[in-house]
Amino acid sequence: MTVFVTFLTDFGLEDDFVGICHGVMKRIAPEVEIIDITHGIAPQNVLMGALVLANTLPYLPEGVHLAVVDPGVGGDRRELALRGRDGRLYVGPDNGLLVPAAEGLDGIEAAHELTNRKYALEPVSATFHGRDIFSPAAAHLARGLAIEELGPAVDPSSLARLELPQPDVSNRRIRARCLYVDRFGNMQLNLTRKHLERLAIEPGRQVELELGEELYYAIAARTFTDARGGEIILYEDAYENIAIAVSGGSAAETFSAQPGVEVRIRVAE
Amino acid sequence: MTVFVTFLTDFGLEDDFVGICHGVMKRIAPEVEIIDITHGIAPQNVLMGALVLANTLPYLPEGVHLAVVDPGVGGDRRELALRGRDGRLYVGPDNGLLVPAAEGLDGIEAAHELTNRKYALEPVSATFHGRDIFSPAAAHLARGLAIEELGPAVDPSSLARLELPQPDVSNRRIRARCLYVDRFGNMQLNLTRKHLERLAIEPGRQVELELGEELYYAIAARTFTDARGGEIILYEDAYENIAIAVSGGSAAETFSAQPGVEVRIRVAE
Amino acid sequence: MTVFVTFLTDFGLEDDFVGICHGVMKRIAPEVEIIDITHGIAPQNVLMGALVLANTLPYLPEGVHLAVVDPGVGGDRRELALRGRDGRLYVGPDNGLLVPAAEGLDGIEAAHELTNRKYALEPVSATFHGRDIFSPAAAHLARGLAIEELGPAVDPSSLARLELPQPDVSNRRIRARCLYVDRFGNMQLNLTRKHLERLAIEPGRQVELELGEELYYAIAARTFTDARGGEIILYEDAYENIAIAVSGGSAAETFSAQPGVEVRIRVAE
Repeated sequence: MTVFVTFLTDFGLEDDFVGICHGVMKRIAPEVEIIDITHGIAPQNVLMGALVLANTLPYLPEGVHLAVVDPGVGGDRRELALRGRDGRLYVGPDNGLLVPAAEGLDGIEAAHELTNRKYALEPVSATFHGRDIFSPAAAHLARGLAIEELGPAVDPSSLARLELPQPDVSNRRIRARCLYVDRFGNMQLNLTRKHLERLAIEPGRQVELELGEELYYAIAARTFTDARGGEIILYEDAYENIAIAVSGGSAAETFSAQPGVEVRIRVAE
Repeated sequence: MTVFVTFLTDFGLEDDFVGICHGVMKRIAPEVEIIDITHGIAPQNVLMGALVLANTLPYLPEGVHLAVVDPGVGGDRRELALRGRDGRLYVGPDNGLLVPAAEGLDGIEAAHELTNRKYALEPVSATFHGRDIFSPAAAHLARGLAIEELGPAVDPSSLARLELPQPDVSNRRIRARCLYVDRFGNMQLNLTRKHLERLAIEPGRQVELELGEELYYAIAARTFTDARGGEIILYEDAYENIAIAVSGGSAAETFSAQPGVEVRIRVAE
Repeated sequence: MTVFVTFLTDFGLEDDFVGICHGVMKRIAPEVEIIDITHGIAPQNVLMGALVLANTLPYLPEGVHLAVVDPGVGGDRRELALRGRDGRLYVGPDNGLLVPAAEGLDGIEAAHELTNRKYALEPVSATFHGRDIFSPAAAHLARGLAIEELGPAVDPSSLARLELPQPDVSNRRIRARCLYVDRFGNMQLNLTRKHLERLAIEPGRQVELELGEELYYAIAARTFTDARGGEIILYEDAYENIAIAVSGGSAAETFSAQPGVEVRIRVAE
């Protein structure tokens, strides 16, 4: 049976960081199969890494889910392996990165600190635990090592957690934030369909978007081709988040927008 | 026997789009092997995707060839699986992307529309058919599913086709277009060796290149090192297209050139 | 037993160059497993490719190590396969790229020129030997072909070698060069710990860095979190080279620095 390790980082693909971690895992577990979710998480952006991991997890085979976005490497944050109640395993730093995915619907069953140097590369560097601690731990788990062997249990309630930015929603307007801009310039907001429903915004409805001082007209739509080229659309994206796109163009370019920008939404008069 | 899926998109590698499609395929067909041709097709550039797929195909193992460059996603363009007379299978949108590769030398034997939701991820999103329709179809074909199971046959002559930009060639000059600029700044033109032969341009010959208002001297050459550093060369590239390079440099930087730019070629007096 | 080919180039991932080489190898050796070390070597930067290959090798499974950074493609530089005394095999151009890795601790046992066209793709293009000569040779070696079959032995002492830039170290100051800037903006220098020890620089010590006309204060540290956000640190990186980082930021941005820049280091008064 194929055993999978999925792999998500902010390492990028320009350097050798991802390749070397593949090498480390393959030396330990040649038979394991690695699926790269993405290595394009913005450098040190733990929140973005956590959201992408949680969003993609349902589409990935079960296995060991290795994730490294680790600005605190070498400091006092712990290194972790987690087991969800659904049986999936997670490896990464204790900075909130793993928790939204691992908690899922059923919660975290066990958490262990990676202190057993038998399952690390010695000497462990101070700045690249992805290579020296996390990849070896993931590979050993993939080979069937019991999570308990990696180090002592820690209380799941003691794990670091991220605060997800919440929208401010009234019956008349929504204040949301852009969480993420993708390659196509689509801007994912911290909203779901139920937030829009409170303002009775549904496909076909015209809405006003305010970014900074600028006001734009957009149309709520199902997909890009439901609008004319150049029109701004507000839609539910494939991860069931609300997003902004420009039909045949790039919303991020149109608005010169970055993740973090505030977007105010109202029904057009 | 290893079964291959090759995979070409405009998804880029910054986001999770490629990783999630790998995950979807591996959940359905854990034993399949995926070869990423490239995910760097310029966003929504169907023509470029079609040319790269057709160029690379002879170097790829036979199998299922999945390609997604899909500006019309969620609209009324069809989703397709094709079978070439050489036995290769193709999956992607009906926008011309697959046709130059699938037609090849022998033509398309069968085309089916992907309407059978048994072989899709439900609910199918309106904006990410790569994940919800095309990847599952490719994985099921790789497992041996008959193409007929995916949906009704459609007439191959009804498939959308792209118009390839043709050069304008006389005995005295050529008007060509830059189709593609690669990482090294080499500019691929819509020309082959036979176009140059009409002007008796062969390695060693000096030629004039006009881009916009500017005139440049170049030398027809076999490879980069046949010219001095900084010299412009016109050469037959590894895909048997004519291209422009700068020896030890970048032609695209030298000319500030983008795909689409017109290049006029004459034999130097 | 899994047989590995590791693969390092300056091809980038925007084009199809890497994917097509995977395809070529898989057609010859479907059972081989390819580990991409990186394809982000700066275009035509042979020195950088050689350093990354040598740095990463100890973390990679043994196998065939294919590397292509090849500005002289199609010219008179030779194509090579090497065997180290440790049994690892190497394939790439004779421009110094392979030598630091292949020589390792034990030296090069055998070198062969790739002249046997039986193990190349015919016709061999003038500009893409990665596809037509090196990938096929690596795949055949991975299948167990004897290196002698690829072409005649050449004297290892005749191989092209790179000059590694040496630092200028006195008891009072060091003149070093930045070899490499990574995704996080960390600047790797051509120094190791022993160079710093000559100036008695160890974690906790304040140092002065001069780049161009500018003077900066930095602290020697073990890892990023040993300094306050925004502080400059000098540290031994995970490859045992000395590097410069900015805690919570990017050193390369702070200094507008590129590979090649000179860095002068003194103990702060």
